[in-house]
Amino acid sequence: MKYQVRVRVMPRGGLLDPQGQAVEHALGALGFAGADEVRIGRAIELALDAGSSDEAEKLARAMCDRLLANPVTEDYELAVEGR
Amino acid sequence: MKYQVRVRVMPRGGLLDPQGQAVEHALGALGFAGADEVRIGRAIELALDAGSSDEAEKLARAMCDRLLANPVTEDYELAVEGR
Repeated sequence: MKYQVRVRVMPRGGLLDPQGQAVEHALGALGFAGADEVRIGRAIELALDAGSSDEAEKLARAMCDRLLANPVTEDYELAVEGR
Repeated sequence: MKYQVRVRVMPRGGLLDPQGQAVEHALGALGFAGADEVRIGRAIELALDAGSSDEAEKLARAMCDRLLANPVTEDYELAVEGR
């Protein structure tokens, strides 16, 4: 069965996020005064063949651990839904 | 009040996503055979001062339209929660 996997990879809390800081400054320059703590990560979507939702999640976690996220500097969370 | 905003910016369906294709090939090379339709976008989180949840969402949409997403090539969705 096909599953749709959505992954969210974010820079780990406490680590510097220069891209987020640049966006925060740009938002301020555009007049958006109330925004702070901007963090920028990656959103990944993929379709997965798997026998069950649990198997799809296990596979997706293995993909994150091996390729999609940097285990030293990033955290990820994922959601699996049938389709 | 402070609101936490989470934005997901993805390449619009039908548009080529070279980064997604590269990751799809890399997953195949690592032995993950069942993954396809890989798409890569940006995940953005920020804290927002606003009077209400509706106002926070309106502000966040304006930020997406002006800076965070490319209106020609990308779609976004966002979630606002109090904190």
